[in-house]
Amino acid sequence: MTVKAYGAHAADRPLESMDIARRPPGAHDVQIDIAFCGVCHSDLHTVRGEWAGTVFPCVPGHEIVGRVSAVGHHVSHHKVGDLVGVGCLVDSCRHCADCEEGLENYCDNMTGTYNFPTADAPGHTLGGYAEQIVVHERYVLRVRHPEAQLAAVAPLLCAGITTYSPLRHWHAGPGRKIGIVGIGGLGHMGIKLARAMGAHVVAFTTSASKRGDAEALGAHEVVVSTDAAAMAAQANSLDLIINTVAAPHDLDAFTSLLKRDGTMTLVGVPALPHPSPAVFNLVGKRRSIAGSMIGGIPETQEMLDFCFEHGIVADIEMIRADEINDAYERMLKGDVKYRFVIDNATLA
Amino acid sequence: MTVKAYGAHAADRPLESMDIARRPPGAHDVQIDIAFCGVCHSDLHTVRGEWAGTVFPCVPGHEIVGRVSAVGHHVSHHKVGDLVGVGCLVDSCRHCADCEEGLENYCDNMTGTYNFPTADAPGHTLGGYAEQIVVHERYVLRVRHPEAQLAAVAPLLCAGITTYSPLRHWHAGPGRKIGIVGIGGLGHMGIKLARAMGAHVVAFTTSASKRGDAEALGAHEVVVSTDAAAMAAQANSLDLIINTVAAPHDLDAFTSLLKRDGTMTLVGVPALPHPSPAVFNLVGKRRSIAGSMIGGIPETQEMLDFCFEHGIVADIEMIRADEINDAYERMLKGDVKYRFVIDNATLA
Ligand SMILES: [Zn+2]
Ligand SMILES: [Zn+2]
Ligand SMILES: [Zn+2]
Ligand SMILES: [Zn+2]
Repeated sequence: MTVKAYGAHAADRPLESMDIARRPPGAHDVQIDIAFCGVCHSDLHTVRGEWAGTVFPCVPGHEIVGRVSAVGHHVSHHKVGDLVGVGCLVDSCRHCADCEEGLENYCDNMTGTYNFPTADAPGHTLGGYAEQIVVHERYVLRVRHPEAQLAAVAPLLCAGITTYSPLRHWHAGPGRKIGIVGIGGLGHMGIKLARAMGAHVVAFTTSASKRGDAEALGAHEVVVSTDAAAMAAQANSLDLIINTVAAPHDLDAFTSLLKRDGTMTLVGVPALPHPSPAVFNLVGKRRSIAGSMIGGIPETQEMLDFCFEHGIVADIEMIRADEINDAYERMLKGDVKYRFVIDNATLA
Repeated sequence: MTVKAYGAHAADRPLESMDIARRPPGAHDVQIDIAFCGVCHSDLHTVRGEWAGTVFPCVPGHEIVGRVSAVGHHVSHHKVGDLVGVGCLVDSCRHCADCEEGLENYCDNMTGTYNFPTADAPGHTLGGYAEQIVVHERYVLRVRHPEAQLAAVAPLLCAGITTYSPLRHWHAGPGRKIGIVGIGGLGHMGIKLARAMGAHVVAFTTSASKRGDAEALGAHEVVVSTDAAAMAAQANSLDLIINTVAAPHDLDAFTSLLKRDGTMTLVGVPALPHPSPAVFNLVGKRRSIAGSMIGGIPETQEMLDFCFEHGIVADIEMIRADEINDAYERMLKGDVKYRFVIDNATLA
């Protein structure tokens, strides 16, 4: 089946309207009419060839929400008309230790939602900037939010789970003091989620102008990271820091804020290395620097249900598909509160 | 009381015989006639002023074993004639969260065995290169090993606990595959301890000539870290790596060997930074780089008891006190298997 999509034919060309093929749904497949797709920094890096290995044509998008329009005859968990979501992965090996534990995101043979090898034409996966997608039922999530909130649910599928998973893994909750570094697409979700989990939330930002916004998102405290006295006042006090900043920066300024046995989890991979973190900051208080990458399918469902129960959605700016190139430019300047979401009806 | 010691009067002077004062034992103090003292790299760095803040005269030594020669009238856990040990700390605040959890090594007011402020003359602590030391009973460990093994017990007090603590904290044991990087004073203890805990032990060394020694120490496998194929064969397989190498080196070569959720714990602080570790190696498998510093008093006692029960001591070369300057030169070249221990009877 041929559907309308928005993507690029080369790294140095803007995104434009194109026709792509989707496979007919197999026995375990769910065919989804995509209503909205969030716009992630990974989309931009991939489609512009800033990471190695982009294959063209490239159709990005892995924050996908929509309605089921057809299902294969063995599909049992989804039915036509359901509101569903698809995140960063559409397949994995299904039998390794990671897959068996529901951590398909760490499977060595995970298939990303775009730019990963697939048997379908054109030989690599094409993402959510499209009218439709066909995905194996295992990788399709149920959405319980009302349809009126659907666009704002889309960013939960990447920005939401990327912060939810480490918050859960490192036990955010009542009595725990959690730092969120960076107030962007990921960070604004991290603040909302950590707050809803019952933790004491400290937001760190380089711009004093974001103080009010961070408080509105749910931060109990906001620290401007260039304010040495304010940073010093947080020393040895945080149980966990989720660091969403992908640009190279001084990690020591944050590791020193962790309690003994505290962890700073990096969820962004910088294009150039961070300055080498001070080993003494780790050794002196048995602290850790860790990394975390999106989340598994069961915990993504858990996250969506958690957000529904706590009334959480992303803060978004809706755009038309043909505004995507401008949106990328604004995203690079941090000029978005806090996630662009494409209205996929504008692809037609 | 004046006793003989060996120390330096300035950073650029060799260690030499000197007289130092020890306080008379207070109500909770244990006075120890020191039989042997292990020689740690920290001793060398401190006495040569290679770390900031050395105060002179400097008497190093924090791997102390000996016999109790007097006790204060409130001392209940030690009596005259007991074999005892003293490690890297001789005091702490005793009431903070770290102290209350028995992790006095992380107390912000921990008093190191040498070069830390104290009310005693000359105003800073003087270590175990001395005939005698007086220590609050809380920081004195019982030694159950027979007296004939006493010299080889000394290095357990720093090299032993520094590797034992992270092995326990990160759950070394049956079914777990543990890497030990570097086969020196710390590493040789790490191999013995991890093996005795029931783990599968992989030793990593830059020198193929150490293969036989590492196997004799208890390693199930020995990998020469310059052998790319041997390193690749270990990829994604280790639960925990204890990295004892304090010289700057490529951490990525080892983080890539960790399983998902694995941790590499650094127990050495390099004088210059390591090359900045790759964030992708952490994010892609939810791995951690952590640090650990010696251990608390209760776990040091547990380690000594564990070593007694498993017949573990350090491999040592005994030296006279007046051989210490030469021993430092040999230690810098890695020319010791695996720890020098001073026979403190030669101080007289
Ligand atoms: Zn994303
Ligand atoms: Zn798998
Ligand atoms: Zn030491
Ligand atoms: Zn304390």
